[in-house]
Amino acid sequence: MKKAIVLLSGGIDSAVTLYLAKKEGFECFCLIFDYGQRHRREIRSAIKIAQSANSQWQIIKISLPWRGSALLDKDIIIPKRTSEATNKRTKCIPSTYVPARNIIFLSFALSFAEVIGAEAIFIGAHTQDYSGYPDCRPEFYQAFRKVITTGTKLGVEKKIIKILTPLIDKTKAQIIRCGKKLNVPFELTWSCYQGDRFPCGRCESCYFRMKGFKEARIKDPLKIGTDTNLGLK
Amino acid sequence: MKKAIVLLSGGIDSAVTLYLAKKEGFECFCLIFDYGQRHRREIRSAIKIAQSANSQWQIIKISLPWRGSALLDKDIIIPKRTSEATNKRTKCIPSTYVPARNIIFLSFALSFAEVIGAEAIFIGAHTQDYSGYPDCRPEFYQAFRKVITTGTKLGVEKKIIKILTPLIDKTKAQIIRCGKKLNVPFELTWSCYQGDRFPCGRCESCYFRMKGFKEARIKDPLKIGTDTNLGLK
Repeated sequence: MKKAIVLLSGGIDSAVTLYLAKKEGFECFCLIFDYGQRHRREIRSAIKIAQSANSQWQIIKISLPWRGSALLDKDIIIPKRTSEATNKRTKCIPSTYVPARNIIFLSFALSFAEVIGAEAIFIGAHTQDYSGYPDCRPEFYQAFRKVITTGTKLGVEKKIIKILTPLIDKTKAQIIRCGKKLNVPFELTWSCYQGDRFPCGRCESCYFRMKGFKEARIKDPLKIGTDTNLGLK
Repeated sequence: MKKAIVLLSGGIDSAVTLYLAKKEGFECFCLIFDYGQRHRREIRSAIKIAQSANSQWQIIKISLPWRGSALLDKDIIIPKRTSEATNKRTKCIPSTYVPARNIIFLSFALSFAEVIGAEAIFIGAHTQDYSGYPDCRPEFYQAFRKVITTGTKLGVEKKIIKILTPLIDKTKAQIIRCGKKLNVPFELTWSCYQGDRFPCGRCESCYFRMKGFKEARIKDPLKIGTDTNLGLK
C-alpha cells in the first residue's frame, strides 16, 4: 500500500486533506506539531481526527525559543478579523503568521517520508480564504519541490516525494462540501485561534469557518457559545 | 550592526564559518541543534566555540521520532571510511546521512532570522570532501533561496535573507588554513562521529580531518589516542 505523510493541525482543511488522501488509497501517517501554540485544543482535535480515519499519528514537539507571532505569544493580541477588502488593499500579512512555520513542518515531513519510504506529503494549505500567509501559496510549494529533488537522498536517486496540496485553489465552502461527501467528522475539528471552551466567533479563523459553512449551506456541528467539547478533554 | 544566524555543529567547518561571519562584521547568533545525535560531545564543543567568538548561542532541541541514520541510531554501525575512488564510483550516500537534516536546520534558522531581522544565515556546508550528502551541494542551497523568497514574510516584502555558504567549494585543507588565519580554536572542535574521549581515527569524519590538517601542513591540536577533553566537560 502506498504511504503518505499528512500534516494534521486539527482544523477543517487538514482533516479534509487526510480523508482525501485516504480516498486516494494512501496509508496515512499523520504528523501533529506541538510548537508552542497558544492552546492545545487543536492538538487534541488532530489526534481525534487521525483516530477517526484509522490512521497512524505522532506528535512532533518543537521548541521555538523565539516568538514573533500572535499564535505563539500571549502578549500579542489575536486580531479581530479585518475585511477581505482591507486585506487585499493593504496586502498585510496577519500577526498570526508564524515565521517559516510551514517550511519547518514540511522539513520534518520530508525527513519522515524518506525514512518510511512515503511517496507523498499532503498539506491542506490553500490561498482562497486566508489573507496573506506567504507559505500557503502555490509558488512556495513549487520552490519546496525543488528542495526535495536537490537536497534529499531520494531526490538525488530520482525517487520523488510529491508535495500534494489538493485544496490549494479551493474556497472554504468547497472544502467543506468536499469534506461532507467524505464524511469528515467536522464536530471533531477546531478552527478558533483562541483555545477556550467555545469558538470565539471573532477571530479571522472563526469568521472564515462560519462564512464557509454558510456558503456551503451546511450546518456546522460546532456552535459559538455552545459546549463544543464533544468528548475532547 | 547587521545580524546573522550561524548554524554551529561543533566541527571545524561551522567554527571557521562563524569566525568568517564575524570578520565580515556580523553580530552572530549561533543555533546549536540537539537532534538526538549519538553523542553530546559535539554540542559541548559548539557551545565552547560560540563562547570563544563572544557570540550568542542557543540550543534547539528537536525530537525526530524516526531513525534512519547511523548518526541517530546506535544499532547502525558507523562505517569505516571507504576510499574516495569507491565513493565516486558507487555514488553512494553514506549511512551517516540524516534525512533532510540541513533542510530542517535551515528552516529553524529562517524562522529565527525573520524574528530578529537577521539578513543572513551562514552554513559551513561544502562539497569537496564529503562524499554524497545531497544537502551539501550548491544546487540545494539555490533551491532553498527560492523557498525564502516565496514562502516567508520577508521574502514577500522583498527583504531577502541570504543563505551564505562561504566554504562551499573549498577543500578541508583550505578551510583549515582559513581557520588558522582567523585564529579559530581548533582544539575546541570535534569531528569524530563517535563520542568517545578520543577521536576514533577510523570514521570518515576523522579521516577527512586528519587528511585536511596534513595537506594544510598544520598540526591538529586534537590527537587520536590522546586526552582531547581540553576543558570540555
